This record gives sequence, structure tokens and C-alpha cells, in this order.
Amino acid sequence: MVEPTARKHIVVVGAGFGGMAAVQALKTLDADVTLIDRTNHHLFQPLLYQVATAALSPADIATATRSLLRRNRNTTVLMSEVDSIDPDRREVRRADGPNLFYDYLVLATGSAYSFFGHDEWAENTQVLKNLNDALSIRERVLDAYEWAEECGDPALVERLLTFVIVGGGPTGVELAGTIAELARSTLRGDFKSIDPRSTRVVLCEAGDRLLPAFPERLSAYAVPALESLGVEVRLGQAVKEIDGEGLVVGETRIVTPNILWCAGTAAQPAASWLGAEAARNGALKVLPDCSVPGRPEIFAIGDVTSFESGSSSPLPGLAPVAKQQGKYVGRVIKARIAGKRAPGPFRYRNLGTMAIIGRSRAVADFGGFTLTGFPAWLAWSLVHLMLLVDFRSRLTVYVNWSWAWFTYGRGARLLTGRPGSARHQPQSNPAE
Amino acid sequence: MVEPTARKHIVVVGAGFGGMAAVQALKTLDADVTLIDRTNHHLFQPLLYQVATAALSPADIATATRSLLRRNRNTTVLMSEVDSIDPDRREVRRADGPNLFYDYLVLATGSAYSFFGHDEWAENTQVLKNLNDALSIRERVLDAYEWAEECGDPALVERLLTFVIVGGGPTGVELAGTIAELARSTLRGDFKSIDPRSTRVVLCEAGDRLLPAFPERLSAYAVPALESLGVEVRLGQAVKEIDGEGLVVGETRIVTPNILWCAGTAAQPAASWLGAEAARNGALKVLPDCSVPGRPEIFAIGDVTSFESGSSSPLPGLAPVAKQQGKYVGRVIKARIAGKRAPGPFRYRNLGTMAIIGRSRAVADFGGFTLTGFPAWLAWSLVHLMLLVDFRSRLTVYVNWSWAWFTYGRGARLLTGRPGSARHQPQSNPAE
Repeated sequence: MVEPTARKHIVVVGAGFGGMAAVQALKTLDADVTLIDRTNHHLFQPLLYQVATAALSPADIATATRSLLRRNRNTTVLMSEVDSIDPDRREVRRADGPNLFYDYLVLATGSAYSFFGHDEWAENTQVLKNLNDALSIRERVLDAYEWAEECGDPALVERLLTFVIVGGGPTGVELAGTIAELARSTLRGDFKSIDPRSTRVVLCEAGDRLLPAFPERLSAYAVPALESLGVEVRLGQAVKEIDGEGLVVGETRIVTPNILWCAGTAAQPAASWLGAEAARNGALKVLPDCSVPGRPEIFAIGDVTSFESGSSSPLPGLAPVAKQQGKYVGRVIKARIAGKRAPGPFRYRNLGTMAIIGRSRAVADFGGFTLTGFPAWLAWSLVHLMLLVDFRSRLTVYVNWSWAWFTYGRGARLLTGRPGSARHQPQSNPAE
Repeated sequence: MVEPTARKHIVVVGAGFGGMAAVQALKTLDADVTLIDRTNHHLFQPLLYQVATAALSPADIATATRSLLRRNRNTTVLMSEVDSIDPDRREVRRADGPNLFYDYLVLATGSAYSFFGHDEWAENTQVLKNLNDALSIRERVLDAYEWAEECGDPALVERLLTFVIVGGGPTGVELAGTIAELARSTLRGDFKSIDPRSTRVVLCEAGDRLLPAFPERLSAYAVPALESLGVEVRLGQAVKEIDGEGLVVGETRIVTPNILWCAGTAAQPAASWLGAEAARNGALKVLPDCSVPGRPEIFAIGDVTSFESGSSSPLPGLAPVAKQQGKYVGRVIKARIAGKRAPGPFRYRNLGTMAIIGRSRAVADFGGFTLTGFPAWLAWSLVHLMLLVDFRSRLTVYVNWSWAWFTYGRGARLLTGRPGSARHQPQSNPAE
């Protein structure tokens, strides 16, 4: 602290996998690091669907960011909302506090879902991006059964027990499989006037196969695996219309209040903050060192970017990409501050990708080597347990998984009266 | 099912300790039982303050009612809201479904807090009765520190880091002690611009001692125990005024948005449903067999009643009272249906009461025999672990407690943007 004015200030926006990796890579740097996030926690997004389907609690997959970073003596954590960025003045403007000057800026703001130009569809669908979304889905799913049990109206029961998932990527596949299992196993004997096994789960994908980022063999495995769980898979059927009563998929109208949207990607507003060139989905285009063209002091990593190296397609929106980019950018910044030669261009090291389909079934792709079924599920479970950031989460997730595996139960079947339930929507009973 | 019309129907309202005990006592009865509750879960209320202070997750202390009762083949669970009761027609009227006819009715609707005639105080205080309340307190407490860290306004920091708990019963003592510990241990090293140890926790009690239901020796123990945790205990100081800026306690004005109300008891509206005679706090007066005077087919148990036997004071609003009354009423109903002699009047068997003050400190009263300090805390922990209704909760609570005990950490430090944070109140920053 001899020359406080010479001390560099690095601002990182977003406490997801990318932002956290960048902050950790900067841990030993003699500089000030500020991490800004809208929430107070780092979320382990790959398990978010398990919160949405009542298998895990929010605290099992989310940890207070400042508690994770308490040993990073150079780091300040702010729970705050970025409003805009002034790249000429090098200032981050916040809605709720003073502006922050930066020497280096790392944008790791992630992505949202895109409605392909139909933003009005957002109103009648539920996405799954953060803990609130997950709790809203949980509320919606559990309350559908409670309401069906007591309403005494077969047509309403049919609507309530229909779930449509749009988007055949990993999240869509995981949600469809888990909701089907919840209905057929967990809830099975718990109701008197309805049979949860009559639940209809529809998974729609506009493309011609599920899990398009995986090898074809695994896509082909996923369809019968989901069908054996009772999921109705509709390939090559795009959504044409969504309204308060339901949706039109291909040529079919499905009447339901339960539409879960897991399709498309829109990068969070970093490109518009900078007035920078964006790819089709709003993602920031970056140079091979993850910096924004013309702004060597601004880096963008993870889902907010569209990273293209040479002829290959853009990198997928996966946690390992964000993590590796965060670590890489930390190294670049350290080298620049130290006046050393920066590392070569970022290269993604693909360690494999996995998606879970249901109890004891998954697909995994490790480059040329693929796994399906129980071995893939075992690999998935072990990898995800290990990746959880703290020991306490690992234990509670392990306990909950073991319990669920042996009993088919779900530990977090709670309705606390949050918004999200179909009962609170316009078509609901006015007395609720 | 040979003579369906002759089959008796018992309706139980409320899935707390009393209602659940009644339903379980009726499990083997050849009759139809319907359990109605506003929520879908049975809540282990004694640990609710731990959810409010981020030590446990909601799912650790709440379990889906219908999953707990899935083996009760004569029982239907309805998540529904009772609107009124017509005792002459023997009908329960619901806001959201058809009326229910009953042969026997068990009212176990519990209690709320009472504001001693100042219902307008509810607007600027937060009570702790259900999971939503607990999550709102958690949001308020955690967000106070986040906001204080970034606001850069010392006067606002002082207000945000002041917590006033009104009511020196077990809930007030537990909340005050735990919030003080959270500030001084868990959050201690996690902030840069504020020192959480400067948190002011004030516990106000209008009476002349804390824990008035406990022996005086234990009340006397609690004051220095809380003070050593940093709690400011104010005895004999009633709340005179509460507004949007703070409150007046005794002669002192305290400016804070964080007022937690744990004083007074108002029984839930069962008395007004029946047009029956109510005790001062709205509780139903009942006969020695827990039935409502003039309505032998209606029973009331737990906090909703004022049970007086002979010269002694009314029974306290404790889980064991509700449980024992529920079990007793189940036996009475079974005897009446079987045409057998009903059991004698209800007698409460006092198995002891406990309250926790902080890490490793508690008070316990087993009749004449009392415990304080670590032995009481150990007894408290073991008893509460055993009383949790399901094995999974016991395991996850055990994991969370062990982790918290060794690390001083809290596993559920999550802000998900629920209402309840001071930032969302009128004095907050309009941009939030």
C-alpha cells in the first residue's frame, strides 16, 4: 500500500464459473479486485434442475460468494447491479452505488434464454436460470398436483398434469426426465383423487435430434431412454404460438399452464453496455486473448461471449469453457501488470460433456469415447459431487442423492406460496 | 365400504404438531379422515429460527404432509384454505373447493402473533411463524450487510446493522442470540468496508424477566449469556411506538428497519368460525376432553385453544401439548365411534421445556430439575434431532449443525431477491 494510486484495480462482473475463476486466478496479485454480482451467491448451475424438481435445496448448490472468497485478501465483493459501462472513462456505473473506476474489466455476465423474437412468450413460460426460477418451477410443479387433487374437475386435472418442455438441450432433457420420474415414482401413491402416473410430459425440439451438441449416438440413445420414463419426445417440431391457454407445437395445440422454456440463448447485455459488435445472439465477439476488439483492457468470458478460433464453430456455453477462460484471463492480466509477455491465445481443453436423463441413466462424451446408461450416470454423479465448491454442499447433496436413490423420494417438496404456481395466474380461482 | 353412508368422516384442520398427531392416532380407524392445511408441508417449528438465520434450509425442517401420511390409507390430504365452519350443518367451507361434511371436526389451526391492539405495527415488523417469514428474515438480515458494505453512508450502515427483537420468550431469545453470533462469528471476516462485529442486537421484553415460562434461575442465566454474545437486553421496557423509521422502547428511540416481532399470541380464527366463546387472545375455550362447549363433535387442540384444568394456568403453547392433545382426541373419537367409554379428561404430561441461547449454550427445565450451558445445549440438540420427522432431515440437519459448529459457518446464506429486504422498503434506493 506504499503507492496506492499506482495500484491497479480489476473489476469482475458476474460471480458465475467464469468470474469466480478469474478472481481466483488473480488471488495472489498485488492489486485490488472487485467482484460485482446481482446476487450474493455463486450458483452451481448444472444442478439447478434438481432444485426445480425438489431433489435439492437452494443452499445445496449455492454458496455465499464472500464466504468463498474470504481468503482472497485483495478482493472486495459487492452485491450490486451494473447499469452501464463507460469504456472511455473506464467506469462501471451502478444503479445503486458510486461508479467504479477500472484498469482492467472482466465481463462474465452469462446468458439468458432467447424467445427467437417472441419476447411476449416469456409471460406464459418459465425459464430456468437462477434460484428464483428453480423455486418457481418447483412451486408450479408441486402445486399442479395439489390443485388437481382437490379441484374435482377432470378437464382442469388434465391441463394441470401436462408439462411441456421446449428445447432439447441438456437442461430440457434433464427437466423432462426428472419431472416424468417425479410423477411416476415419487408422487405415485400420495394422492387419492388423481393418479400422478397420468402426467403427460412433452419435450419439444425444433431440430431433428435431442442434445445437438453431443455425438449422434448419444442423441439416439436419449430418445428411447426418455420415452421409457414416459416422456413424449417431439423432434423437428418448432413452437409456433404460446398464449395464456397453452401452445402450438408443429401442428398440435397443447392446453397447459406449465410451459418450461429451455431453448435459445441470449447473452446478457454486455454488448450493448459497450456499444460493441455482437454476434447474432447478443454475445460479445472477442479476440483470441478474450479481449474485446479495440478495448484491450476489457475481457469477456463464458456465455456472454462468442469465441471463435479459426474455422471451428463458437465454443459451447458450458461451465468448463467459462472456468478455463476465467483462469486464462487472470493470467493475461497478471502478465500485463507485471510487464511480462502475455500467454498465447486461449485454447479450450475439452474434458468431456455429460447430460443426465434420469435415475441411473445419462450420456457422456469424452472426445471420441462415449458412455451411456448406468456408467455414464455414475460418472456424472461423481464428477458433479466433486465439482461442488464446498465440503458442506458435497455432504448434503450426497445425503439427498442417496436418500432419493434408495427411496425414490424428494426431500424438498415444499410449497411456500411463492409466485409461480398456476393457481396464481389469470385463469386461476379468484379466491386463491 | 359396505355401508358408505355409515362411514364416519373426520376432518382435521391444520397439519402442525396437533393435527398430525390426531391423524396418526386415527390411522387404524375404519373411517375417512381428511386433513386440510394451507401449505403442503408439516413444519418443525422449533427450528424455524435456524432457517431465519441461514443455518438450515427450509427442506431440512419441513416435509411434504402427504408424503408423511402416504401409509395412512384412510386419510386424504388437501392443501386448501378453510373459509368458515357451519357447526349446525357440520360443514367446513373452503375458499377454493366444495364444502366438506364432517361427523367429527378437529381444529388445530395454531396461533399467530398479537400486536396488543396495534395491528398497524405489523407493517413495519417481521414475525416468525412460517417458512416464508423465516426466508424474509434471512433475506433482511443478509441483505442488511450487503447493502451496508456498498452504500458508503455511515448513518445508513448504523441503521442497517441494528436489529431489534421484541419479545423475550424462547423465539426472541433464540433469534437474538443467533443473529449476534452470525454477526460476530460467521460474517466477521467477510466484509471490507464494514465490521459486522459492530452489529447492535437489542432484545426487548416488557416483563421483568426473559423466558417467563421457565424457572427464575434459568431466566437469570439467560441475561448474562446473551450479553456475552453481544446482545443488549432491555427488561421491563414495553414497545410504545413503531413506524417506518424505527421504534420507541421504554423511553428510547431506536432507528432501524429491522424489527423482529416475537411477542404476544393470537389464536388463529377458529373461535370466530364457530361463534364460540374465546379467551382473551382469541383462543377457543374447551372442556376437559378438548371438545368445544355445546359442540361435542368439535375438538380444538394446541395453540388455538386455551386449556384450563382446575386451578392451574392455561397450558403453554408448546409442541408437546399439541401433540399430546392430538393423540388424546384421536382416542376420544375412536372410542365414541366404537361406542366405547371415552377416556378420562386430558392431562398434560410435562416432559420438560428447553430454549437455546447460542452456540453451546441453552437452558432446560425438566420439572424440578434444570440444566444450563453446554449440558442443556447437548440435550437440546439431541432431542431436536430425534424429534425431526424423517430420517433424511435428521441427516441433513446433523451435517449442517456439525459443519456450523466446527467452522462457525452458515450453509444457507442465500439472497434470492425475495420481498423482505430493507432495500425493498419505502426508504430504499428507488433503483433497486
